[in-house]
Amino acid sequence: MISVPAEATGRLSDAWRACVGTGRIELALRRDYQDSLALLQREIGFRYIRGHGLLSDGMGVYRPYAYEGARRVHHSFTYVDQVVDAYLGLHVRPFLELGFMPTELASGDQTVFWWRGNVTPPRSYDEWARLVRATLTHLVDRYGIEEVRTWPIEVWNEPNLTDFWQGADEAEYHRLYEVTARTVKDVDASLQVGGPAISPGADEWLLRFAEFAERREVPVDFVSRHAYTSGPARPVPFGAYQTLAPARRLLDQFARPREQLKGTRYTELPVHITEFNSSYRPDNPIHDTAFHAAYLAPVLAAGGDHADSFSYWTFSDMFEESGVPTALFHGGFGLLTHRQVKKPTYHLYAFMARMGEELLERGDDHLVTRHPDGRVTVLAWAPVDETGRTPGPDRHTLRLSVPVGRRPRGAAFVRRSTVDEEHGNAWTAWRHMGGPRSPRPHQIDLLHEAAEPARSHLRLPVEDFRADLGLTLARHEVTLVELSPVEDETPPWWDERRLLGSPVEPR
Amino acid sequence: MISVPAEATGRLSDAWRACVGTGRIELALRRDYQDSLALLQREIGFRYIRGHGLLSDGMGVYRPYAYEGARRVHHSFTYVDQVVDAYLGLHVRPFLELGFMPTELASGDQTVFWWRGNVTPPRSYDEWARLVRATLTHLVDRYGIEEVRTWPIEVWNEPNLTDFWQGADEAEYHRLYEVTARTVKDVDASLQVGGPAISPGADEWLLRFAEFAERREVPVDFVSRHAYTSGPARPVPFGAYQTLAPARRLLDQFARPREQLKGTRYTELPVHITEFNSSYRPDNPIHDTAFHAAYLAPVLAAGGDHADSFSYWTFSDMFEESGVPTALFHGGFGLLTHRQVKKPTYHLYAFMARMGEELLERGDDHLVTRHPDGRVTVLAWAPVDETGRTPGPDRHTLRLSVPVGRRPRGAAFVRRSTVDEEHGNAWTAWRHMGGPRSPRPHQIDLLHEAAEPARSHLRLPVEDFRADLGLTLARHEVTLVELSPVEDETPPWWDERRLLGSPVEPR
Amino acid sequence: MISVPAEATGRLSDAWRACVGTGRIELALRRDYQDSLALLQREIGFRYIRGHGLLSDGMGVYRPYAYEGARRVHHSFTYVDQVVDAYLGLHVRPFLELGFMPTELASGDQTVFWWRGNVTPPRSYDEWARLVRATLTHLVDRYGIEEVRTWPIEVWNEPNLTDFWQGADEAEYHRLYEVTARTVKDVDASLQVGGPAISPGADEWLLRFAEFAERREVPVDFVSRHAYTSGPARPVPFGAYQTLAPARRLLDQFARPREQLKGTRYTELPVHITEFNSSYRPDNPIHDTAFHAAYLAPVLAAGGDHADSFSYWTFSDMFEESGVPTALFHGGFGLLTHRQVKKPTYHLYAFMARMGEELLERGDDHLVTRHPDGRVTVLAWAPVDETGRTPGPDRHTLRLSVPVGRRPRGAAFVRRSTVDEEHGNAWTAWRHMGGPRSPRPHQIDLLHEAAEPARSHLRLPVEDFRADLGLTLARHEVTLVELSPVEDETPPWWDERRLLGSPVEPR
Amino acid sequence: MISVPAEATGRLSDAWRACVGTGRIELALRRDYQDSLALLQREIGFRYIRGHGLLSDGMGVYRPYAYEGARRVHHSFTYVDQVVDAYLGLHVRPFLELGFMPTELASGDQTVFWWRGNVTPPRSYDEWARLVRATLTHLVDRYGIEEVRTWPIEVWNEPNLTDFWQGADEAEYHRLYEVTARTVKDVDASLQVGGPAISPGADEWLLRFAEFAERREVPVDFVSRHAYTSGPARPVPFGAYQTLAPARRLLDQFARPREQLKGTRYTELPVHITEFNSSYRPDNPIHDTAFHAAYLAPVLAAGGDHADSFSYWTFSDMFEESGVPTALFHGGFGLLTHRQVKKPTYHLYAFMARMGEELLERGDDHLVTRHPDGRVTVLAWAPVDETGRTPGPDRHTLRLSVPVGRRPRGAAFVRRSTVDEEHGNAWTAWRHMGGPRSPRPHQIDLLHEAAEPARSHLRLPVEDFRADLGLTLARHEVTLVELSPVEDETPPWWDERRLLGSPVEPR
Repeated sequence: MISVPAEATGRLSDAWRACVGTGRIELALRRDYQDSLALLQREIGFRYIRGHGLLSDGMGVYRPYAYEGARRVHHSFTYVDQVVDAYLGLHVRPFLELGFMPTELASGDQTVFWWRGNVTPPRSYDEWARLVRATLTHLVDRYGIEEVRTWPIEVWNEPNLTDFWQGADEAEYHRLYEVTARTVKDVDASLQVGGPAISPGADEWLLRFAEFAERREVPVDFVSRHAYTSGPARPVPFGAYQTLAPARRLLDQFARPREQLKGTRYTELPVHITEFNSSYRPDNPIHDTAFHAAYLAPVLAAGGDHADSFSYWTFSDMFEESGVPTALFHGGFGLLTHRQVKKPTYHLYAFMARMGEELLERGDDHLVTRHPDGRVTVLAWAPVDETGRTPGPDRHTLRLSVPVGRRPRGAAFVRRSTVDEEHGNAWTAWRHMGGPRSPRPHQIDLLHEAAEPARSHLRLPVEDFRADLGLTLARHEVTLVELSPVEDETPPWWDERRLLGSPVEPR
Repeated sequence: MISVPAEATGRLSDAWRACVGTGRIELALRRDYQDSLALLQREIGFRYIRGHGLLSDGMGVYRPYAYEGARRVHHSFTYVDQVVDAYLGLHVRPFLELGFMPTELASGDQTVFWWRGNVTPPRSYDEWARLVRATLTHLVDRYGIEEVRTWPIEVWNEPNLTDFWQGADEAEYHRLYEVTARTVKDVDASLQVGGPAISPGADEWLLRFAEFAERREVPVDFVSRHAYTSGPARPVPFGAYQTLAPARRLLDQFARPREQLKGTRYTELPVHITEFNSSYRPDNPIHDTAFHAAYLAPVLAAGGDHADSFSYWTFSDMFEESGVPTALFHGGFGLLTHRQVKKPTYHLYAFMARMGEELLERGDDHLVTRHPDGRVTVLAWAPVDETGRTPGPDRHTLRLSVPVGRRPRGAAFVRRSTVDEEHGNAWTAWRHMGGPRSPRPHQIDLLHEAAEPARSHLRLPVEDFRADLGLTLARHEVTLVELSPVEDETPPWWDERRLLGSPVEPR
Repeated sequence: MISVPAEATGRLSDAWRACVGTGRIELALRRDYQDSLALLQREIGFRYIRGHGLLSDGMGVYRPYAYEGARRVHHSFTYVDQVVDAYLGLHVRPFLELGFMPTELASGDQTVFWWRGNVTPPRSYDEWARLVRATLTHLVDRYGIEEVRTWPIEVWNEPNLTDFWQGADEAEYHRLYEVTARTVKDVDASLQVGGPAISPGADEWLLRFAEFAERREVPVDFVSRHAYTSGPARPVPFGAYQTLAPARRLLDQFARPREQLKGTRYTELPVHITEFNSSYRPDNPIHDTAFHAAYLAPVLAAGGDHADSFSYWTFSDMFEESGVPTALFHGGFGLLTHRQVKKPTYHLYAFMARMGEELLERGDDHLVTRHPDGRVTVLAWAPVDETGRTPGPDRHTLRLSVPVGRRPRGAAFVRRSTVDEEHGNAWTAWRHMGGPRSPRPHQIDLLHEAAEPARSHLRLPVEDFRADLGLTLARHEVTLVELSPVEDETPPWWDERRLLGSPVEPR
Repeated sequence: MISVPAEATGRLSDAWRACVGTGRIELALRRDYQDSLALLQREIGFRYIRGHGLLSDGMGVYRPYAYEGARRVHHSFTYVDQVVDAYLGLHVRPFLELGFMPTELASGDQTVFWWRGNVTPPRSYDEWARLVRATLTHLVDRYGIEEVRTWPIEVWNEPNLTDFWQGADEAEYHRLYEVTARTVKDVDASLQVGGPAISPGADEWLLRFAEFAERREVPVDFVSRHAYTSGPARPVPFGAYQTLAPARRLLDQFARPREQLKGTRYTELPVHITEFNSSYRPDNPIHDTAFHAAYLAPVLAAGGDHADSFSYWTFSDMFEESGVPTALFHGGFGLLTHRQVKKPTYHLYAFMARMGEELLERGDDHLVTRHPDGRVTVLAWAPVDETGRTPGPDRHTLRLSVPVGRRPRGAAFVRRSTVDEEHGNAWTAWRHMGGPRSPRPHQIDLLHEAAEPARSHLRLPVEDFRADLGLTLARHEVTLVELSPVEDETPPWWDERRLLGSPVEPR
């Protein structure tokens, strides 16, 4: 039995909810998107949101025209304002990613994704600088510098990949970064700019980025990279299967930038993991499973030790990188499917959001915190076998001695919320239903119900200020347990045996 | 095993949701009330609502004043309109009960309830008739005769009790009825008027009411009475315990009017049970329990055989007959507590609302129906021991062969929603929490969660057009099971064993 | 003075609100779109909505894939269902337009609009037929044949224009129509299919379409065409100016199909004007003006004489045919701008929606109707000079003797709502503000206020059952006047002169 | 012409919105009440709300019972919590008034109002102290001491009147105050307690209250009194007319406590005017008029000079002191009628809420402020003749030179919102309609429209950093004018003369 200390060992970092990813930000104009984000904000409460495509054609920002015989450019913010207004209205701030290239400013025609984001350098860095300047000036005018200076500004996305940056040309990226960063600081020196937003497997880019920045005295307010654990894809139509590395590899990736920058002038810079997930594919069904929640639980519990934020990629299945999804469950990244069906990993986040501020204890399979009002909250998870060689243990037990309340003896009210293969698991229900690609309204209602965690409650005795909490977790279970001291207000005359009017023998 | 017929044996009567009771109708001005009613209408959908006090002082209708030396009366509908607007906006119609007596029109000062409804005859029947006429004329003007003629108009409440009608004076009630009914018909002959709204134990009143009406040629469009099964109260502070008769006694009471009127000119009249419940007391904790749902299940399933409506008394704990409730759970009549916490009996109604129109089978512990789209729905309930001598069986099993779909073999998707002592039972959770009289916001959230039924789902094989459904019910369980044929859209390439990327052996 | 008859001369056709146009239907996923449509439905209440792009790539319906070495096609309805669910939830039905061509089914690569709708014939008519069949079968399965048979199904859009149909190839359109119509009827014979959805200036297409259909026995349940009155465009950056023909030319165009089909077997077919407006360009500022409302007023008043529907193109500025709008007011078609700012033409529609069912009188500058409850409603409009040579009269007077109520003498309560150059005119306010392209929240609030009509009210005497109503209209004014008989409930003791407590002299 | 200074002369006090009055707080359970308060909070934003009856029977707090042969008392907070939750949810805090006496704790049976608030001293001061202690302890437990210490706690209401405190017994009030204040401080010393909540005409009570408190060392954290200007009532049925003193008498009354306490130890205490209005009667039609808004405008503009809060009595016509209102407009105190129809005085408050923080200038008929973003806001009002001897001037002019923006020349966008006898005046519309006591839905819609201020806008030239603003006010007008510098974004190619396509002559 693990004895949870009665004194806090620190505060629980909230790096886990500092940021969340989104499909291209134009999607923020959608109703389903906003409804989904509203739900997230109500039950989880992210602080920032980051996605691609701010400057892509769909946002309609860069608008050349001819007048009096000359080519001119109008910078237009009709949709940018609608998106940012929506975010702020939902109490989440943009983590700006500057990209991709407007078609009419691009030097080439290479695009990425079904929605054709252009990934070539600008044909004119002066025009690019004017675009960046116009955009940030507009944002500062409209939202105020006090607000905008809290929005990190990241230059481009994964320039180390040829898919995302023509030729993965490092020197060209440094040029883009330098022009951009200087322009940003020229708008207002307090704005925060950073990069290089690299994908895993290109760690040396970060070092060279730091060297370049130092050498050229280019402003850098934070560094960023991504983290994923999946192996090569084995595709099937509209999907793919992949192997996964152990979840602790995510923590390793989170930790890399600080390790790499140790001893440089950038030692103290904030580190943002601006994307992370198991698989980097939006069509891998693993994202929809209870396994996935249990796999990521230790990452959420410990990630804050290593980075200032780690942003789950992405909050919703509304995504469209590889086209419009062809079924409600299709292996999308989302915490939510279209129409707001919660996946198990959603609940992992929602459970984290109910943890307290004081960190009491953290173990391989549990996290214990306390709220200011004295409630103690336990998050526990079953170990998983990410190799798939075994299904993972079908039972996992855990026993904690939990400090509860200020009275030596009494009772604790215990409430438990469970997500596993059978509970809080709309995906299993959908599979049982036959996997309806476009479920009917009646089926959607049912999936919403099936997506809710199982709840139970009981009373435990408190002795010597402690309750003895035994937990048995099912396969792939993630569970939230909340203990609060009972203040018994039951009146002295209450006698449940008399409910049906029977006269009761003297006690 | 019971073999459920594949052909419908009739239609399921919806008398069970024809009407629901409410605390005095002035309470309909409250927000919590309207929110509660909105929830009910969304998930259950009653057609009418009936409560006391339409003409009592709190509604401000009867307003004498002096002008130019004479006493005059203004009839004022400020609140009546607000209440009726709210009802119609929530898609429920008023079942009008004319009463009690405005203080300034009353012949005496006897009152009933904490809120002091005057229960004496009018000091002037002419003035009473003017009040009735003004009220109905106003309603017809505002809402249209097409609408108002669908609202039954009941004269007074339980005149056979001295608490509700001074001296329980039968002749005086007949006079009140006659004056009222003639006035109603004078406003518009198509309006429906009825009575005598008697409590149990006064069956002879109904016969004499019929004789009186026939003799005096007084209009009667429906008859009404109440039904309860509780014995004498054993009070404790802010509460009472009572014995209960078996639930079938409610059905007996529902059936009485038709039995009594058989062969009279009133044989075909609609019969409305304008109040029913187990206990008639708003402070009997039995109303809050899972026992109560299981006790009433067979009554809802069969009540429509005997009466045109039977109106659960009442939809919400907002009630106040004996004062403002002193704890969230206090034994109130409500399907909902204050702040919309659902009780087990709420779920019995919500389950009934998910039954289909075709009646396939009805037994002592189950009801089976089918929807137009082919889904089959089973409501099952555990037997109870209402004497309290035993706790009732802790397990009850039931096995049904259920016709599903149009294909001889395949699968059925089965979803089950459960309410029992542990699940869908906020009262148990509240008891575990120590019975907080005025729960904190955090506790109210938790009670809302605890009040939701447990949900589960599975697949059953279908052979020869049928699935074999075995159910085990816990103590006091009421369960809803829905079976739908599976249309399997799983693509041929799907292989769950490959989820973690493992190469798969040939099958 | 015009004496309005006291007896109805007929019923007011509601062809004016039978349908409204929308930007490509994928936009229906947006929140601003749905909020705008909800506003429209609350205040106007269209019955159908029609837009392009149901089968275009953005909706993700046609999805080829390879499996086991073969090319297969999945038809996917993720977004179709979201859009149709949204429409039905807003109480408007889709008027289906089948088009444009999915890229992967297209025979060529010609596209129309910024969003690249492919306008070439299918490379396989069999695959096209399977696409049509799958789409309609899905809709019938999900929404029921009772519902779907009320949705007209139009084949393609403006095939007579080379921009919309490769080569404007008439024989190819007939082939497309035939394959489509037969497939539709094969899904269910009660579905309604029609065409040819031609633009103005190609009247002969309709005749040849009728001949073709008759000759080949191809099903035709309705015919459709479009109507516009603008001349050639004189472009400026992000906009264009155009001349306009007189508004009665719209009525002429509405009337053409019935004239053309007279005496053929198609004489009785419903005629749908599936698009109409003044200018066919989404960047002509005339759409934003009070002139536009006054110009179209007689068309709405009389259009129902000539066609079964005439669908205003389009309800909102969310449109994007020529890219994302670069300013709040940009000459878009919309009745509403982005963010729901109402234009004068919106009010013309909202005023029409307040007219009664009985038609009492119609003139060159007015329309008079009566409601079932006796209220009489007058819509009046100022004449306009669409040549632009003069600004139009700055005052226009009108005098009507209006029948009011059932009492020979008394008073009428008169309420007037006014839209003109100064009132109910957010565009003027926006121009005064300096034309902010992306207005700040504070400015948007102000535009919402400025967009509301001016309201006034007064009492008129009623003599001999009539009130004498004199109206003076400002330039480009459209005004709604509602007269209702006064039922005076002022008590006899009321004396406004005593408001400040002064003793009052005997009257 | 008045030249408004370009530099702020101070900050505009927001004492005017520090608090607002309400009918007995039990009414806060109503939906119409909460909807009304939500509207107020959205458009005005009060910080506190104060009403009678917290401890009266309707709130159900004091609940004696017998158990084991002894009388005991349960303190119950079912409704208190619902009310406070609603207030905090609407972002307004309770200004607690402790009273009236629970019937079962009262020493006598004198009551006030239709709803029978008992106004006699407690029969046991010990029990009273326990009630106060239980109430505050509960509130602190539930809402936290950080929150509750911001809620002023006032002891009783108008004890100087025999209607409100039996015999207006001053010594008894001092006793009540002392017991209460000591108990409050005993719960938590940081809670704020005060009194004596006197009505006008009893100024000496305040002095004696101060002497008593000083002498007995009784805690006093603030002093409170009321202010009204009406003379004796001349009643009519359901109403009364009264004379009014000049509005500056309200300011005199606001100023009295500070004058009286000058030089005492209480000099620095906050002064709360916990009720003010013109007439103290809830049935004086003056409350419904435009006159009333113009009469009170200078009081809102200047009241903050004299007191820390002055609380308009009351925000809504939901009130019931003299029974349920018999007509929509009945002379109630409310800023809003039932069903949220705005009165002219509502707009006075809403206009004040749009004023800026910097005070530029204040005159007899105007107030000028500036917002942080540079907008300048002018509130102007017509002088009134409160004697009623004349109707007041029918035109009043005002000319201001207003500093606008940071550029020496350019333009100002000017927007004006007007309330007078004809505009923003639902009362006039209601009178025109015949004064329908219980208006139909259609009439209520119309009243909502008629209640909106008239809006207009124009551009003024700016010369030398200033615009010349001439205002002509109608009788009883209150007007809000907002000036903002125009940033002209009109593109160079814009030419309004070309709207209808006409070729334009060279300029």
